[in-house]
Amino acid sequence: ENYAIPEPGPNEVLLKMHSVGICGSDVHYWQHGRIGDFVVKKPMVLGHEASGTVAKVGSMVKHLKPGDRVAIEPGAPRETDEFCKIGRYNLSPSIFFCATPPDDGNLSRFYKHNADFCYKLPDSVTFEEGALIEPLSVGIYACRRGGVSLGNKVLVCGAGPIGLVTLLVAKAMGAAQVVVTDLSAARLSKAKEVGADFTIQVAKESPQEIAGKVEGLLGCKPDVTIECTGAESSIQTGIYATCSGGTVVIVGLGSEMTTIPLVHAASREVDIKGVFRYCNTWPMAISMLASKTLNVKPLVTHRFPLEKAVEAFETSKKGLGLKVMIKCDPNDQNP
Amino acid sequence: ENYAIPEPGPNEVLLKMHSVGICGSDVHYWQHGRIGDFVVKKPMVLGHEASGTVAKVGSMVKHLKPGDRVAIEPGAPRETDEFCKIGRYNLSPSIFFCATPPDDGNLSRFYKHNADFCYKLPDSVTFEEGALIEPLSVGIYACRRGGVSLGNKVLVCGAGPIGLVTLLVAKAMGAAQVVVTDLSAARLSKAKEVGADFTIQVAKESPQEIAGKVEGLLGCKPDVTIECTGAESSIQTGIYATCSGGTVVIVGLGSEMTTIPLVHAASREVDIKGVFRYCNTWPMAISMLASKTLNVKPLVTHRFPLEKAVEAFETSKKGLGLKVMIKCDPNDQNP
Amino acid sequence: ENYAIPEPGPNEVLLKMHSVGICGSDVHYWQHGRIGDFVVKKPMVLGHEASGTVAKVGSMVKHLKPGDRVAIEPGAPRETDEFCKIGRYNLSPSIFFCATPPDDGNLSRFYKHNADFCYKLPDSVTFEEGALIEPLSVGIYACRRGGVSLGNKVLVCGAGPIGLVTLLVAKAMGAAQVVVTDLSAARLSKAKEVGADFTIQVAKESPQEIAGKVEGLLGCKPDVTIECTGAESSIQTGIYATCSGGTVVIVGLGSEMTTIPLVHAASREVDIKGVFRYCNTWPMAISMLASKTLNVKPLVTHRFPLEKAVEAFETSKKGLGLKVMIKCDPNDQNP
Amino acid sequence: ENYAIPEPGPNEVLLKMHSVGICGSDVHYWQHGRIGDFVVKKPMVLGHEASGTVAKVGSMVKHLKPGDRVAIEPGAPRETDEFCKIGRYNLSPSIFFCATPPDDGNLSRFYKHNADFCYKLPDSVTFEEGALIEPLSVGIYACRRGGVSLGNKVLVCGAGPIGLVTLLVAKAMGAAQVVVTDLSAARLSKAKEVGADFTIQVAKESPQEIAGKVEGLLGCKPDVTIECTGAESSIQTGIYATCSGGTVVIVGLGSEMTTIPLVHAASREVDIKGVFRYCNTWPMAISMLASKTLNVKPLVTHRFPLEKAVEAFETSKKGLGLKVMIKCDPNDQNP
Ligand SMILES: NC(=O)c1ccc[n+]([C@@H]2O[C@H](COP(=O)([O-])OP(=O)(O)OC[C@H]3O[C@@H](n4cnc5c(N)ncnc54)[C@H](O)[C@@H]3O)[C@@H](O)[C@H]2O)c1
Ligand SMILES: NC(=O)c1ccc[n+]([C@@H]2O[C@H](COP(=O)([O-])OP(=O)(O)OC[C@H]3O[C@@H](n4cnc5c(N)ncnc54)[C@H](O)[C@@H]3O)[C@@H](O)[C@H]2O)c1
Ligand SMILES: NC(=O)c1ccc[n+]([C@@H]2O[C@H](COP(=O)([O-])OP(=O)(O)OC[C@H]3O[C@@H](n4cnc5c(N)ncnc54)[C@H](O)[C@@H]3O)[C@@H](O)[C@H]2O)c1
Ligand SMILES: NC(=O)c1ccc[n+]([C@@H]2O[C@H](COP(=O)([O-])OP(=O)(O)OC[C@H]3O[C@@H](n4cnc5c(N)ncnc54)[C@H](O)[C@@H]3O)[C@@H](O)[C@H]2O)c1
Ligand SMILES: [Zn+2]
Ligand SMILES: [Zn+2]
Ligand SMILES: [Zn+2]
Ligand SMILES: [Zn+2]
Repeated sequence: ENYAIPEPGPNEVLLKMHSVGICGSDVHYWQHGRIGDFVVKKPMVLGHEASGTVAKVGSMVKHLKPGDRVAIEPGAPRETDEFCKIGRYNLSPSIFFCATPPDDGNLSRFYKHNADFCYKLPDSVTFEEGALIEPLSVGIYACRRGGVSLGNKVLVCGAGPIGLVTLLVAKAMGAAQVVVTDLSAARLSKAKEVGADFTIQVAKESPQEIAGKVEGLLGCKPDVTIECTGAESSIQTGIYATCSGGTVVIVGLGSEMTTIPLVHAASREVDIKGVFRYCNTWPMAISMLASKTLNVKPLVTHRFPLEKAVEAFETSKKGLGLKVMIKCDPNDQNP
Repeated sequence: ENYAIPEPGPNEVLLKMHSVGICGSDVHYWQHGRIGDFVVKKPMVLGHEASGTVAKVGSMVKHLKPGDRVAIEPGAPRETDEFCKIGRYNLSPSIFFCATPPDDGNLSRFYKHNADFCYKLPDSVTFEEGALIEPLSVGIYACRRGGVSLGNKVLVCGAGPIGLVTLLVAKAMGAAQVVVTDLSAARLSKAKEVGADFTIQVAKESPQEIAGKVEGLLGCKPDVTIECTGAESSIQTGIYATCSGGTVVIVGLGSEMTTIPLVHAASREVDIKGVFRYCNTWPMAISMLASKTLNVKPLVTHRFPLEKAVEAFETSKKGLGLKVMIKCDPNDQNP
Repeated sequence: ENYAIPEPGPNEVLLKMHSVGICGSDVHYWQHGRIGDFVVKKPMVLGHEASGTVAKVGSMVKHLKPGDRVAIEPGAPRETDEFCKIGRYNLSPSIFFCATPPDDGNLSRFYKHNADFCYKLPDSVTFEEGALIEPLSVGIYACRRGGVSLGNKVLVCGAGPIGLVTLLVAKAMGAAQVVVTDLSAARLSKAKEVGADFTIQVAKESPQEIAGKVEGLLGCKPDVTIECTGAESSIQTGIYATCSGGTVVIVGLGSEMTTIPLVHAASREVDIKGVFRYCNTWPMAISMLASKTLNVKPLVTHRFPLEKAVEAFETSKKGLGLKVMIKCDPNDQNP
Repeated sequence: ENYAIPEPGPNEVLLKMHSVGICGSDVHYWQHGRIGDFVVKKPMVLGHEASGTVAKVGSMVKHLKPGDRVAIEPGAPRETDEFCKIGRYNLSPSIFFCATPPDDGNLSRFYKHNADFCYKLPDSVTFEEGALIEPLSVGIYACRRGGVSLGNKVLVCGAGPIGLVTLLVAKAMGAAQVVVTDLSAARLSKAKEVGADFTIQVAKESPQEIAGKVEGLLGCKPDVTIECTGAESSIQTGIYATCSGGTVVIVGLGSEMTTIPLVHAASREVDIKGVFRYCNTWPMAISMLASKTLNVKPLVTHRFPLEKAVEAFETSKKGLGLKVMIKCDPNDQNP
């Protein structure tokens, strides 16, 4: 982390970093140096769940000024290609993305970023809430792709950070009842705490058996399943569980080839839709946090100053808590 | 109300009525004998916001049995025409609709109805909540047509019963902030009570001025406006107020010809969408009420036994409260 | 086929049958007595691609009269359940469907059917075109589910009857270019004849290789793939081939469990959507046939009188032609 | 037109212009110096329907090289604001748009433009087809906003250039039948020539009467109406004519305030949607032109060399033909 303070380009802002959450992918790059096709080839700065304060603005930046507190959207397209033009910029193959090789992340004292992907936080939203917009965005986008709507019954598979934000979002969108599954009782009790209507601790049951339990608890099959584990058996559960005409959203990423009951899905018109990160979520997430429509604060379980980053990563790796926050500003370690 | 107890047809149920809300249209028919092209030509039973208990089921009815508590969807298609087939049965020209001439309503001791449009209430949902699903459905359907979604800013014009249920639904769908307008301070304070973030009391300001106030309060133009007054000036306000690419939903029904700033709407792609009653709302409304996602109970301000129906109508006509409930079961006048 | 002439119920019509196409599923029931969970337990009349003339109408039928020429939608819901109400009646579990056990088909001299699912043919549409609306509907519905739209590049896997109607529909919807794959050169030359821009004869190439060929021919990945073979390798091809943000529609039904590159699909947001038959296609199909927007006539390659039904089935089974028509009216064997 | 040859910026290309169509708005600025709020304050170059050849590329341009033939999308966003991010960049308030004050157009020998909004033309697409993609885009976008789909009946009001491209697009999207209205018999005969199924010459009939004629010709009300005149009476016709649940698209721009039968629209759920230019149309338009899915060539009725631009404008103003093309390359005046 001994980088020189960078100079922002014309459409960039230099940020003094405040809070950076650690994500499973950060831990993975830290441990293994690669995720699938993304291989770390030179030392890479980690971190992509972040917020900070504008220190300097590029010559063409109009909507931000020094002193503004901002949340950072880590994916910022490099080109205006056809994906960007149609509003699905997350699919742009040349997108810059913090801490995805070869792009550096923002776990550092200072960091510069495309100004259009830095969003001003109102006073009522804390820096940590700002940093949590990144994982929250996965939940928002997954629920949006799944078409979660008022009165829906929803199944969320997995109670890791992503499963939990998905739960929060589904409830905020008006889901009547949400069932959450996980292997771990501790994670499920956190899910209960933040709003799950029902939880199922998965052990050795078959996917059909879990699906049956879900239906038993809800009194019907869920309209939408959002799969946040990546486990093949859990994906199968999602397909068996979802009602005809419903949707299974694939958030969790598992092994390359997956065996699924495709005829069962297709002949009941259960759509299978993946999500790749997110797009168009920051402004609305800020509105929601500002209006207290949604409370993400309980997700933060640990905090470490930047100097103790290694300890922070160790903690995250052990999976003891949920979200570990690294505090980058030595003068302000508040949430 | 001295009708003989009717015999249910094969696909009908006979209901012992419990709670029936009075709607503006009921008062209007009672006073004027017509609404637009719908003219009352013979004595007509009023009432279409209702719930009751199944007393008898027709020979082909499978999903209900005597003793089941049900909410009644007052519109039940008579034919399987193309509107029904595509799921927009509310547009079916030959639809049966309670208390719309020539069809009788259900403000009576006993009433028979198409069994497919009677929905079993769980124990946790009261009869009055069941009856309130009818006006609530207008709000659900309006928000759905408007595409209200998570984090949205919403303008609701009018704080009558319909404006208020729309407010409740918009919040339940995750709207970040809702502004409500009305002429009446009393109605606006009710709106505040049930969740409005901001209210505007409209007096002599021009539509552009009200639109400016809305933008001032929200810090931006609303994504969706739901017009629940029918007043021309309020419809104009809705168009001026809504952000480019947003939607104005026309719920309120005013005079036949309306003058609107159409170029302003069109060149900013503010869509104008009407709603005709609702469709596909009862099951999800019941899920929401059962899971306490939404609280409609504060809307009921008055209750009268069926014998005092005239007094009930007088009260409703005076506009003193919000929703007046008529209790049809002499042995159970509970909510 | 020695059934007595049935009497139509109040909402039914009795039809004098004219043309009935033979479908793969008919041949399958004829040979094996079952398809998946649908098992033939008593002698069943086959046939579900049909048209005829109204001979008698039930007491409540208003839109048809004796002498009307009609096309028959073989799936007619028995109940107004929630799937019907939302316009997805094909998903109704209790639906009646011709020639799917235990329901009889319409390959007979006379046949009665739900009048709401019989559609009057204008004089300009032949009986055979009327019968072909059934397979055509699979293509229409698949293209609709896939969101085929103007200027799209489309991949259709399989050049059987279903692949070919899908090709026709995709072109009619404005697809700029359609690639069709098959194992059989003969089928591919038929595809070329009816409008395929490119064809690929599949042999031993891997799914990725076929996907590469598709991209080579189109100059880009297709927006939509419609899989009409049911072969696992072809489903995999569809996923590899489709562009990010696109859709693979699963029409072909193969083995219960299918291994697919799910992470590849999910992380490029290639949606996987099945189709179960179709809904809401007959009226528009008739409009299209009447206005000559679409030409299905070349699909019929063989005709047999009803007396020679066994020969017709043998021919269909051999797969020599495409669509075999059985002519049920001894006095009119015209198309 | 005595401008110096401009130097392209890093993300721009310099184009040697070939063909530029004259649009009603060009004529209007030429005559009146303003359209609504857009006022010409300094001499402005006209022209926005254009194609040319890349002469020079900016330092960061990767997808184009000198010699490439391109079609120009005249609207190119200046900022990546929220409208751009969601894929509705046409609504971006700060967008650059050729020949809309204060931005210059491209009716000149050389012109530089944002490279991301220049699209390479394949050899099979002529320069004039490339230029015509601009008006064609209005038709594509209008049909898309209207949800025109396979088998639809469509009403197009107005047979000017915009009405005609809309007709072409509706047919290409699979509309079964299209009715076109106009005041002028000459324009209607052009409409017939390029594919209208029916035409109605409007004289003194009331909107309801015209609506009745439309229904008479089609045998039912149209699913979609696309209004391309801006006349109040024609907008009213569109509302009366459209079927319940359908859409009226407002393309034509008339006077600021418009009186419409709003209750009639709202209570039949006829949506009213405007269009502001277009977005996301060039790539698909090129695909369509390349594959001959659509033929726009008959729209060009006059050609003038750039030196005779005034004569070209006079011709266009007189409304004698349809599309007047100005040929900017003295060495190549071919289509
Ligand atoms: N698609 C995307 O853009 C995107 C973005 C972020 C994360 N992800 C993925 O989402 C997944 C979840 O992320 P996270 O940070 O919450 O991970 P996590 O590892 O903290 O949580 C996963 C949870 O799933 C549980 N689980 C595992 N197998 C299970 C099974 N068979 N049934 C039920 N529960 C089971 C685990 O106990 C764990 O609690 C990961 O696969 C991650 O790679 C995808
Ligand atoms: N489209 C449908 O299917 C449908 C269904 C139900 C009701 N409605 C209509 O919805 C409207 C509302 O119904 P309701 O029962 O709430 O009626 P209501 O009369 O009780 O409420 C209307 C409210 O609008 C307020 N208002 C009037 N002019 C206003 C203005 N210029 N600005 C702001 N507020 C103004 C009034 O003070 C009143 O409080 C009515 O027009 C009714 O006909 C339509
Ligand atoms: N989902 C539904 O509602 C529905 C409705 C009708 C038919 N279907 C299914 O659609 C499929 C097609 O029906 P059909 O009547 O056209 O059948 P068909 O058997 O006549 O045609 C299938 C074609 O696929 C080709 N094929 C097989 N493997 C292939 C591969 N690996 N690559 C390329 N082509 C390959 C075959 O040569 C054949 O021409 C069948 O599976 C049928 O069961 C589904
Ligand atoms: N919304 C947009 O982004 C956009 C873009 C381009 C053009 N436009 C508008 O679209 C409209 C059409 O453009 P154009 O270039 O074809 O114009 P145009 O003037 O050439 O054509 C309009 C046609 O409408 C006919 N017409 C007028 N009144 C009529 C009536 N009452 N009934 C039937 N026909 C009638 C005229 O005879 C004429 O042929 C214009 O209003 C233009 O401003 C809008
Ligand atoms: Zn992350
Ligand atoms: Zn009511
Ligand atoms: Zn078939
Ligand atoms: Zn133009």
